[in-house]
Amino acid sequence: MRHDHLLTAKQLSRADIETVLDRAATFDDDPAAAGERHADELLALCFFEPSTRTKMSFETAAKRLGGDVVDMGSVESSSVKKGESLADTVRVVEGYADGIVLRHPKQGAAKMASEHVDVPVVNAGDGAGHHPSQTLLDLYTIREHAGLDDISIGIMGDLKYGRTVHSLAHALTNFDVHQHFVSPESLRLPRSVRYDLHEAGAQVQEHDSLDAVLPNLDVLYVTRIQRERFPDEDEYEAVAGEYSITPETLEDAKDDLAVMHPLPRVDEISAAVDETDNATYFEQAHNGVPVRMALLDLLLDDD
Amino acid sequence: MRHDHLLTAKQLSRADIETVLDRAATFDDDPAAAGERHADELLALCFFEPSTRTKMSFETAAKRLGGDVVDMGSVESSSVKKGESLADTVRVVEGYADGIVLRHPKQGAAKMASEHVDVPVVNAGDGAGHHPSQTLLDLYTIREHAGLDDISIGIMGDLKYGRTVHSLAHALTNFDVHQHFVSPESLRLPRSVRYDLHEAGAQVQEHDSLDAVLPNLDVLYVTRIQRERFPDEDEYEAVAGEYSITPETLEDAKDDLAVMHPLPRVDEISAAVDETDNATYFEQAHNGVPVRMALLDLLLDDD
Amino acid sequence: MRHDHLLTAKQLSRADIETVLDRAATFDDDPAAAGERHADELLALCFFEPSTRTKMSFETAAKRLGGDVVDMGSVESSSVKKGESLADTVRVVEGYADGIVLRHPKQGAAKMASEHVDVPVVNAGDGAGHHPSQTLLDLYTIREHAGLDDISIGIMGDLKYGRTVHSLAHALTNFDVHQHFVSPESLRLPRSVRYDLHEAGAQVQEHDSLDAVLPNLDVLYVTRIQRERFPDEDEYEAVAGEYSITPETLEDAKDDLAVMHPLPRVDEISAAVDETDNATYFEQAHNGVPVRMALLDLLLDDD
Repeated sequence: MRHDHLLTAKQLSRADIETVLDRAATFDDDPAAAGERHADELLALCFFEPSTRTKMSFETAAKRLGGDVVDMGSVESSSVKKGESLADTVRVVEGYADGIVLRHPKQGAAKMASEHVDVPVVNAGDGAGHHPSQTLLDLYTIREHAGLDDISIGIMGDLKYGRTVHSLAHALTNFDVHQHFVSPESLRLPRSVRYDLHEAGAQVQEHDSLDAVLPNLDVLYVTRIQRERFPDEDEYEAVAGEYSITPETLEDAKDDLAVMHPLPRVDEISAAVDETDNATYFEQAHNGVPVRMALLDLLLDDD
Repeated sequence: MRHDHLLTAKQLSRADIETVLDRAATFDDDPAAAGERHADELLALCFFEPSTRTKMSFETAAKRLGGDVVDMGSVESSSVKKGESLADTVRVVEGYADGIVLRHPKQGAAKMASEHVDVPVVNAGDGAGHHPSQTLLDLYTIREHAGLDDISIGIMGDLKYGRTVHSLAHALTNFDVHQHFVSPESLRLPRSVRYDLHEAGAQVQEHDSLDAVLPNLDVLYVTRIQRERFPDEDEYEAVAGEYSITPETLEDAKDDLAVMHPLPRVDEISAAVDETDNATYFEQAHNGVPVRMALLDLLLDDD
Repeated sequence: MRHDHLLTAKQLSRADIETVLDRAATFDDDPAAAGERHADELLALCFFEPSTRTKMSFETAAKRLGGDVVDMGSVESSSVKKGESLADTVRVVEGYADGIVLRHPKQGAAKMASEHVDVPVVNAGDGAGHHPSQTLLDLYTIREHAGLDDISIGIMGDLKYGRTVHSLAHALTNFDVHQHFVSPESLRLPRSVRYDLHEAGAQVQEHDSLDAVLPNLDVLYVTRIQRERFPDEDEYEAVAGEYSITPETLEDAKDDLAVMHPLPRVDEISAAVDETDNATYFEQAHNGVPVRMALLDLLLDDD
């Protein structure tokens, strides 16, 4: 992988992706091997928005590599309140650390930041923009369970606003994957994303209901349908009920269907599914560690 | 000690307690000995409620053992705000760390969490429930100053709501300790706790005033009387004044009486007492480190 | 350097300052040399007020020395909310760490804290009081760019309320430095500071405008003029405009003029200045790391 920064999954070729996933698999197989690869290296965590799993797993990844982190803390406790620009903040922070992980509410923030500093910047979410390490851990999880060639994946829920879904769908066009999008009419893929997938040569179908397509799926990727998206509470309840997964839903699925979710979930997947062999979402969250270790390993090696 | 989790002091036998205190004494005597016992181990700190000393001393303990921590951060900066269940949060977090320290406002939270994960869970306070590492550091401090056999301890202040006091009193029933409870009528031990102590064979007496019993005490454990407990401000002032400790109060005490307090204190112990040899509360707070090192050492060894 | 604590820059002799700056230069030249100088040492970070760069650079400094930190977290998540005194908090914290870095809104807080503990206390800002590590990194930056003998420095902006400026001006009296103070009438140096500098034998001149003095300066230290200081918005706008730096402003300056700023800046220095060779403020912020490493190295060695 020959990149200075990781800003979007789109910048990654199939070879890049496979380099990251292979490296992650190495760390996954033998965590101790990573031990001192990045001793004395510091990673700055600049989270301008709340996060649990992304921040904790980057911190874990840095530490599992023998390095450490320096945390900017919450925006409330930072100079940002004094009106400092993001460009200034990251230019200061690059003096403290060997790399910067940035989450920021404004789309394009990570790209802008990367133009002001000489250390690697990892985009850990820029508003409606990108969150490439999420995409990579999704791909890693899919590859572990079903491989990335000649598979069928269902992607269900809020396909309109879900940044995670758009990135994943695009990244999957690098592989031989049939993508089935399942959502209510009002939450379908935006036209721009559909066009984008088409351009990339994706094999895509859209569905109103999971029923017809479920038996063919190797992976079912569920996302949250947010109450706020619906003007009418009753409409939300109806949709949420129809697009939620229970053990009964899974009766028609392949035995080894992997059910994924970027978490946090609310009601989209019932707790009873947790006990099934299909439940893959916690493992998926855990995969954030080896995948982010691989990313940091590759980016920090690059400087 | 043969436990997977530490949820309540009640789960600990006398032998368990002595194992922890003995190990703590080893770390206390020779801090350097602990140096690399848990290198490469990560402890997740999940504090759903504010804390200074508990959180800092667990962090210190992990680091003094050669390990490190991964901090969930405050609830405001976490996925909890998005409605994630505690069970989901800890199942994600177990993928990041080798153990979890959990503080949560809901009673029973730590026990519930422990049922969902395969890494050790340490209860660092679950609302009105338990806070066993506090009890262990209290026992350690008492043992260092007076031993745990054939001693008399006074426990004073808010005995009705004080979770710390209930746990300590119960734990002391494992030893040959006379317990004297001193409180205003309205803040006496709850009936259930009194019954519990009776069942455990405790040697217990209750008093309205410290005067009569003070000269016999080896240890005086003071707790805070909270203003909020009193409907009437005047009543609070009267009680708070009567149950606060000054150097004059201590004139009738044994020279080597150890005055303890779980901290933070407000007016229960006057600053002038800090200068006396009786003041043991800061040492007690500091004992949180070796005791928590011992706990982590024993629990992390177990997995 | 023979001090137990670092409370104010005024406590430091010229020899003390040079000891710190020389040590910092060593760390700057060869960061790896610091690697394990303070392995197993823990620094407590007690920030009772928000901070980004000071806190992050102390954390970085401790970690670059091989040590680690224990963070009190924000005041909202601490026992301070329960009414604990600062004296009690630091007496507890000294049991966790080998040194304490303290920022507190009350002037005199660090000095008071230092009287209650046996570990070194570093004042990282006490309200309108002192912030000596800022002064030291300012001196380090000036020395790197212009030396500290026979130079002219302009100090511009809010000279009335700027704690940073008062400390720096006083510290510069240890060296052969001509100080030119440039500010609007309403934000001139307080009489007490002027008297203080006079007593210390400073070579001082005051100016309304930068124009006349700029061509002679080796260093220009700019500070923020805060909107809140002005009763009238128009007056603020006029002053802010006149005392802000652009590439045009610098046309009459020496080619190697170093423009400094304690940051965060808002409009005092235009972004276009960042591209000039004069811009020294980010490097100045980065110097916080080697200077704080030197400080910690000297103070932790002393115990």
